[in-house]
Amino acid sequence: MNYRMLGYLFGVLMSIEAALLLLPLLTAAIYGESVLPFLYTMAILLGVAIPLILLHPRKNLRFFAREGFVCVAGTWILLSLTGALPFLFSGAIPSYVDAVFETVSGFTTTGATVLTSVEELPRGILLWRSLTHWVGGMGVLMFMLAVLPSDNSRAMHLLRAEVPGPTKGKLVPKLRKTALILYGIYVAMTLLEVVALLLTGMPLYDAIVSALATAGTGGFSVMNTSIMGYKNPAAEWIIAIFMFLFGVNFNLYFFLLIGKVGNALRNEELRIYAIVTLLATGVILLNTRGLFNSFGEGLRTAFFQVASVISTTGFTTADFNTWPTLSKMVLLLLMLIGASAGSTAGGIKVSRATILVKNAGRELRHILRPRSVNVTRLEGVALPEETVRSTSHYLVLYVLTFLAGALLISVDGASLETTLTASLACLSNVGPGLGAVGPMGNFAGFSAFSKLVLSLEMLVGRLEVLPMLIFFAPSTWKKM
Amino acid sequence: MNYRMLGYLFGVLMSIEAALLLLPLLTAAIYGESVLPFLYTMAILLGVAIPLILLHPRKNLRFFAREGFVCVAGTWILLSLTGALPFLFSGAIPSYVDAVFETVSGFTTTGATVLTSVEELPRGILLWRSLTHWVGGMGVLMFMLAVLPSDNSRAMHLLRAEVPGPTKGKLVPKLRKTALILYGIYVAMTLLEVVALLLTGMPLYDAIVSALATAGTGGFSVMNTSIMGYKNPAAEWIIAIFMFLFGVNFNLYFFLLIGKVGNALRNEELRIYAIVTLLATGVILLNTRGLFNSFGEGLRTAFFQVASVISTTGFTTADFNTWPTLSKMVLLLLMLIGASAGSTAGGIKVSRATILVKNAGRELRHILRPRSVNVTRLEGVALPEETVRSTSHYLVLYVLTFLAGALLISVDGASLETTLTASLACLSNVGPGLGAVGPMGNFAGFSAFSKLVLSLEMLVGRLEVLPMLIFFAPSTWKKM
Repeated sequence: MNYRMLGYLFGVLMSIEAALLLLPLLTAAIYGESVLPFLYTMAILLGVAIPLILLHPRKNLRFFAREGFVCVAGTWILLSLTGALPFLFSGAIPSYVDAVFETVSGFTTTGATVLTSVEELPRGILLWRSLTHWVGGMGVLMFMLAVLPSDNSRAMHLLRAEVPGPTKGKLVPKLRKTALILYGIYVAMTLLEVVALLLTGMPLYDAIVSALATAGTGGFSVMNTSIMGYKNPAAEWIIAIFMFLFGVNFNLYFFLLIGKVGNALRNEELRIYAIVTLLATGVILLNTRGLFNSFGEGLRTAFFQVASVISTTGFTTADFNTWPTLSKMVLLLLMLIGASAGSTAGGIKVSRATILVKNAGRELRHILRPRSVNVTRLEGVALPEETVRSTSHYLVLYVLTFLAGALLISVDGASLETTLTASLACLSNVGPGLGAVGPMGNFAGFSAFSKLVLSLEMLVGRLEVLPMLIFFAPSTWKKM
Repeated sequence: MNYRMLGYLFGVLMSIEAALLLLPLLTAAIYGESVLPFLYTMAILLGVAIPLILLHPRKNLRFFAREGFVCVAGTWILLSLTGALPFLFSGAIPSYVDAVFETVSGFTTTGATVLTSVEELPRGILLWRSLTHWVGGMGVLMFMLAVLPSDNSRAMHLLRAEVPGPTKGKLVPKLRKTALILYGIYVAMTLLEVVALLLTGMPLYDAIVSALATAGTGGFSVMNTSIMGYKNPAAEWIIAIFMFLFGVNFNLYFFLLIGKVGNALRNEELRIYAIVTLLATGVILLNTRGLFNSFGEGLRTAFFQVASVISTTGFTTADFNTWPTLSKMVLLLLMLIGASAGSTAGGIKVSRATILVKNAGRELRHILRPRSVNVTRLEGVALPEETVRSTSHYLVLYVLTFLAGALLISVDGASLETTLTASLACLSNVGPGLGAVGPMGNFAGFSAFSKLVLSLEMLVGRLEVLPMLIFFAPSTWKKM
């Protein structure tokens, strides 16, 4: 393990985090709130970061896949542990474990909260909370790649570990340029949403925090009742559409930008993602008829919740906990599937779910006609056996993690519905589940131990299982 | 598709079913109940069976894997559709769909019931109900192999499709002899349990039906409150131990019989099965302390429920629906795992679960050291890649079936806990789930559509997914 190299990278990342804290600090200053929580945190971050950067290795620049995984997992853990400090210092969240849970939930774009009364908190603190979603959505290492010079092979190891889903990492030969393009699209879309929300009459501050949380597919809101609290149908439509859009593979927006519209629209994952969203909306609309005053309200509410859950954002405009079982079951399936690879969303991703279902069909054909050649195709291309194999294993690891998490937190004695959906909602980075952790509930009722378990599940889900497992595997830390 | 050959086999199987009906007929006669429901059913069975047997093909005896799967799936569906007739004719279950559900639940050794008042029914009918467990446990095709002469290659296709779990089919070179040995062990163990239960003071009739349901790991009882109703601690211990024993691979009993005690005890699956049972019992014992009057009662109750659920029998001596969440979560995991391959139990089987967990570890090692050679071992032998691959795919198909089933029955609007556990309890052939389908509940509340869905899930679970999927695949019925 190249510790000096890792230390250097951690130092750079902590400096970036310190720089990001300037935004909530500025917000706090504007609203006349205390800036000390942010100043203290920045001092601690830079106090550790500067020596680490100065110890930069001159000779040994080796950086392998193992270092890549450890770097990614370590970065996310470190950012969460330090990002929790403003919550602690401001007294917004008095318990450090709770503050870490909230920060992990922010960076992993989960949106699960331990706060029982959001409205009372300072605006600077709430901006930081939503900003973690935005930073975590596209990835903090991606950000580093965009702003710092770096060699391609090292960067590739990092990207592979941080970008969600089985997707090709590079749009253009230079990775740094890819990262810049993706962040450019991300910033532009976020600004577009802010403007659109302003046009509906939403105040600037609320428009910014809502857009940050939508872009990262996070779901933290500054209202206890989430987006429902604004009673603003136009804003609900805009947020619903943007939640859907942020669940699309960002590479497709790049294709749109360079004029390859056909490439983007022919994308199989996009088509399936759209079809699943439409189908789910239709089923829920039928199933919840009678609960709403008009067809328009029903459609808006059904689409909002579907887009929110499949994109794993977690904003809500209705308490789907009280909906009929069929609707809850549909939402549960969407929670598991998630949105597209290469987007900011969680879940197992539409492309993986597609591969799994297609491959199940192929297996059957193989048994009926053992000598025929069957391949699983995605985007019209035959998938290598290795991809199909690793997708199956991914589901196995996902299911095992989900079950292990549910088993560990079941000690708290919450209802089985709460226990199972809390584990799934954290692993898939959705946020709200059902029961006590439903749209109108929160995670405050869990023990410190369970909050740590759920924090780990959020990280496992965001980083796609492997980096976290490798980080905690004893063999990683053994001398080779 | 060799239809004549299939027809002949179906004819033979229906004749066997007609012969089996003599036992409940005799019971009904002894207790002075009407024998007509059984006579009518036998007449129908033989009326169809005899022409089919007479049409036996003289020339085309070809029988491939496809015919094997279709034959197995078709047999089980046919037996269920006809086996339901005594329930219908006697008026015990007035709805045919309900009667089919109960019969499928019987043959697949699930033990899920639609009956709300079992005690009132005639004894002949209840014996038939328990007898379906016994016949379905070891397999009706296996029975055919034991009693009829047959050539090896055809038989192998059938066996492969009917015996639960990834296990070697043959103990001795001749398949017929293997089937005879396994059925011999099965009969002997069942008789042993009857005798043991008689010694505890249980009446003969109750001892027989309980033993039949234990042997098949089914779980139908003649009491509404299951084994709890006997208030007989010694009988509870005996049934618990036999449930555990019927969850062991029957090949190991053969090894014991021929003196290879070491072979049997060194079996990895047996060791893991025993360890999981002990661990689960320990956790539940700790978690439910305070609910019982004495340590002995707690231990007996915990072990009984664990043995019942892991062996997928479904007998109960306590309403675990009211237990703490941790205990319910443990039982849910046991439901998924099930007992050993080559036993009469359902679930994904201990050996498959072991392969999945071991392989997850291997995948991690592979990523850390891509050039090292990693193999997954079971019973000390390196598993072929093909086995590991098909095990992963099996879990994927299992999860997809479970989710699809839960989605379809969620239309009924039962609670999410009821919906999810009903789907899992039927697919894994356990029987009782949680919520409304818990130990003190039943499946009567589901719609006819949901009962058909759950019946298919039971068949898919018992026949290990593939035969049923192949049976319903359109391509199976296309001319090649």
